[in-house]
Amino acid sequence: MAQTRRGFLRNVGITGGAGVMFHTMGALGLAPAASAETPPFSPLDRDALNGRGKRHVIVMGGGIAGMTAAYELLKGGYSVTVLEGRSRPGGRNWTVRGGDTYTDMSGQTQRAGFSKGQYMNAGPGRIPQMHVTLDYCKELGVPIEVFTNQNADAFLYRENVPGSLNGVPVRQRAVKADVHGYTAELLAKATDQGALDAELTATDKEALIAYLRSFGAINSSNEYVGGGRRGYDPQPGAHLEAGTTLPPYEVSDLFRSTLGNYFSFEMGFDQAMMMYQPVGGMDRIAYAFAAAIGARNFRYNAEIVDYQNTTDGVEVVYRSPDGPKRITGDFAVNTMPPHIAAKVRSNLPAEIVTALGSVSRTNAGKIGIEYDRRWWEEDFRIYGGITNANTNIGNMWHPSYGYHGDRGTMIGYYNTGANANFYGALTPAQRLEEAVRQGRKIFGDVYGTGITGSFSQDWASAKFSEAAWVGWPTAVGGRTGTAYRSLLGATRNIYFAGDHLSHAIAWQHGAMTSARATVQQIHERVTAG
Amino acid sequence: MAQTRRGFLRNVGITGGAGVMFHTMGALGLAPAASAETPPFSPLDRDALNGRGKRHVIVMGGGIAGMTAAYELLKGGYSVTVLEGRSRPGGRNWTVRGGDTYTDMSGQTQRAGFSKGQYMNAGPGRIPQMHVTLDYCKELGVPIEVFTNQNADAFLYRENVPGSLNGVPVRQRAVKADVHGYTAELLAKATDQGALDAELTATDKEALIAYLRSFGAINSSNEYVGGGRRGYDPQPGAHLEAGTTLPPYEVSDLFRSTLGNYFSFEMGFDQAMMMYQPVGGMDRIAYAFAAAIGARNFRYNAEIVDYQNTTDGVEVVYRSPDGPKRITGDFAVNTMPPHIAAKVRSNLPAEIVTALGSVSRTNAGKIGIEYDRRWWEEDFRIYGGITNANTNIGNMWHPSYGYHGDRGTMIGYYNTGANANFYGALTPAQRLEEAVRQGRKIFGDVYGTGITGSFSQDWASAKFSEAAWVGWPTAVGGRTGTAYRSLLGATRNIYFAGDHLSHAIAWQHGAMTSARATVQQIHERVTAG
Repeated sequence: MAQTRRGFLRNVGITGGAGVMFHTMGALGLAPAASAETPPFSPLDRDALNGRGKRHVIVMGGGIAGMTAAYELLKGGYSVTVLEGRSRPGGRNWTVRGGDTYTDMSGQTQRAGFSKGQYMNAGPGRIPQMHVTLDYCKELGVPIEVFTNQNADAFLYRENVPGSLNGVPVRQRAVKADVHGYTAELLAKATDQGALDAELTATDKEALIAYLRSFGAINSSNEYVGGGRRGYDPQPGAHLEAGTTLPPYEVSDLFRSTLGNYFSFEMGFDQAMMMYQPVGGMDRIAYAFAAAIGARNFRYNAEIVDYQNTTDGVEVVYRSPDGPKRITGDFAVNTMPPHIAAKVRSNLPAEIVTALGSVSRTNAGKIGIEYDRRWWEEDFRIYGGITNANTNIGNMWHPSYGYHGDRGTMIGYYNTGANANFYGALTPAQRLEEAVRQGRKIFGDVYGTGITGSFSQDWASAKFSEAAWVGWPTAVGGRTGTAYRSLLGATRNIYFAGDHLSHAIAWQHGAMTSARATVQQIHERVTAG
Repeated sequence: MAQTRRGFLRNVGITGGAGVMFHTMGALGLAPAASAETPPFSPLDRDALNGRGKRHVIVMGGGIAGMTAAYELLKGGYSVTVLEGRSRPGGRNWTVRGGDTYTDMSGQTQRAGFSKGQYMNAGPGRIPQMHVTLDYCKELGVPIEVFTNQNADAFLYRENVPGSLNGVPVRQRAVKADVHGYTAELLAKATDQGALDAELTATDKEALIAYLRSFGAINSSNEYVGGGRRGYDPQPGAHLEAGTTLPPYEVSDLFRSTLGNYFSFEMGFDQAMMMYQPVGGMDRIAYAFAAAIGARNFRYNAEIVDYQNTTDGVEVVYRSPDGPKRITGDFAVNTMPPHIAAKVRSNLPAEIVTALGSVSRTNAGKIGIEYDRRWWEEDFRIYGGITNANTNIGNMWHPSYGYHGDRGTMIGYYNTGANANFYGALTPAQRLEEAVRQGRKIFGDVYGTGITGSFSQDWASAKFSEAAWVGWPTAVGGRTGTAYRSLLGATRNIYFAGDHLSHAIAWQHGAMTSARATVQQIHERVTAG
């Protein structure tokens, strides 16, 4: 236990409130300005280039990083051209709606069969409240609503685990009540027995026991015997209906099931509630960026095949529906996934190409399954949230929109790594079949009933992505190694940006902050001297 | 620990999923049908009274219980008249908007100064996902959205507590990370030292330690040293910005501060996320009920002054803008708060009047404070949720609607009991002044800046309510005593309904289920024999 006294902060906190305290923390070198490794971003203003003439920046890729760069450069009076291989903006920020067609790299074509108003976010689906993604939603006028990342009434499911909870779908609230209850009981007993006398004073022990009573809902004998936190069936209601609870799961079964380990998820820095999503689909952000950038600055269906540093700028060649095109600019911001940037022809130095190619790729998969009724609300009283399984489906998302509507679209699996690859190797029809087979283990027959549409995405086989996200292996020094660092500045006139060059990989926040850092670098260079 | 094996349920669960399991639980007498004390409700159909002639039911009170009763009776072909003292439907379900005026029982008048689109729910504000309240939202076409009952980035504040956290506003995520971390560390140490060898087998201990590593984010030496769960400042971002964490609070300070005890709240049966609210204000439910019941069946401004059982029905006298009126019916459903029902003139038997008057009353207060900017989002990155203090304000609600808008309305206090009475004794201006004084301790100067409107409600001084809710004291046997039970059936032709006659007191669910039970009783009587 870190026994760091912070008396000064405490005193400031007492007299001035958190606003003052945060400010003071900055002055003390504990908060943003002083300790940030990457300088805070200040948007360019329209006079930023005054007297220096127009600069043209080619933005390679119209995903979130590319569009953030273009959008911020335009604010400062730069001219930009965004080259995007796909026929839509957003990259991995992609919302699939009824009628959308998609062909993966193996040539399989799907047509999403969703009804009007139904959609799935095939890529990012949730926004933590501290991410700059929300700032862009505000600035671009994209309305937001809650993304339900946690729900006490959603299920957990573990199979191939020891004990009687093997293969039993259980409500999250019941598991949480029990693991907290037993943890409190065991710690209270150990404390009472003097096992922690070396660690705790008598006063501390008293405070700890009081906390454990509250935390674990243990009784005055420090025993956990279940209770209302676990849920009722029937629930409390009229007249004499006090509600009926079921007894707790057995302590041994419970801990050996690993069910309780799920709750570390909801405490994660970037997964703890509250979380948000754009109303109507994550791509509302992508389309708002694209509209702000302007169609005249955007080339869709522009697959980059060659990019070069030239004496005084950059030159990029791309395929277009009208044949190959060549474009020149003063600078380029290369936001292509690094493993793709590495294999497209260029005159980048060999060590830069090696650095780009040194990333490890992670796959992720999702399936959207539309049903003709919202059985998770109607039959199970689950309004949003995530049901989690240790099977190949990983996570199911109960939708965070359209409550009480006629239809609804579950995310039947959101998984990564080997599970994503497993589904990716199947045909779309097989993916649905397997997802339904797994879902039935948790929700029963209803999971296979009334399906009116589906769509599945495998990011490893998605052209222009070829992965869900990438990482920086320890072998190349992670995010402090030479490979990573070599991409943080300019390679002559070419800059790199994307979530892969951030500490928020796989989040739009990473793409946005990386793009902002690049905009800052370009502008400092242009205005230097 | 209850060591109840449930092998059969387990086996059913394995093969059939939860749907099958729940069904089987019913068959085993563990679930609704068999164990319910109050029979499940089946709505009446339009032929329910076939051949029995029209029956007229006087519904005394147009709150949620009264309107549920009227609405369900109308489905079965009954004629109803709802008598409501106020000029609006809903009772304690009340949404205050700009321009609304209100006079309390001491004669103080307020005019709410909120801007267009801003509102506060002066009464109920949140709906658990399992409550029938949501079923009525669906049936009545009232759209719902998430109520943010939990937010890792909202604050906790404790003063007059021992240790260095006294008077320091802290983020909930930091407190939770620390109390879970220390709890895990202490229990892991005790387990390693053999303190629990009598309780746990070697296998169990191993499973427990694995759980504690996940739960508490303790390291491989079973030590808690803080980490990202607590939050970052600055947060992880572009390039080399890995984020900076602050060290954990001291274990002794932390437990003695009682801060961690707050987290029992979010595990409560009816407080755990997800929760919901009607879009646009809780009174959307009240107005939807009123519209479904029909204006011709509703008398507003109808203060009941006398109600009597007669030989073949009931007779009710009420004040109206046109002078006193008398109305007769076959039955009455009396949904007035019991302490008011007891003091209005009637010919109820003395023991019934005594029973009605035997409740204990709880007060609750709320203040809505509108600001000209959403500083909690902009300055603190708090999007919804509850900031909780052990001062007289109790709870502050960050609004669950209007994210990113120009203005926003905080609930500056939601408190009960002595704190509510303290504010209730102040003038509205004094309430605002005190709420701001307390809020500044947590949020600093911003809490007193840019206030553009406010409104405060004290339920004890609200005519037709005279309390926020009531309870059944142990002295009269609680909800198993004679007093309570005497109100569950008919007193000749008069029935009683309301959340006070349920095990969901202070929830609309209690009012609704109680009203449904009464409708069932009336209809059984009418159709008997």
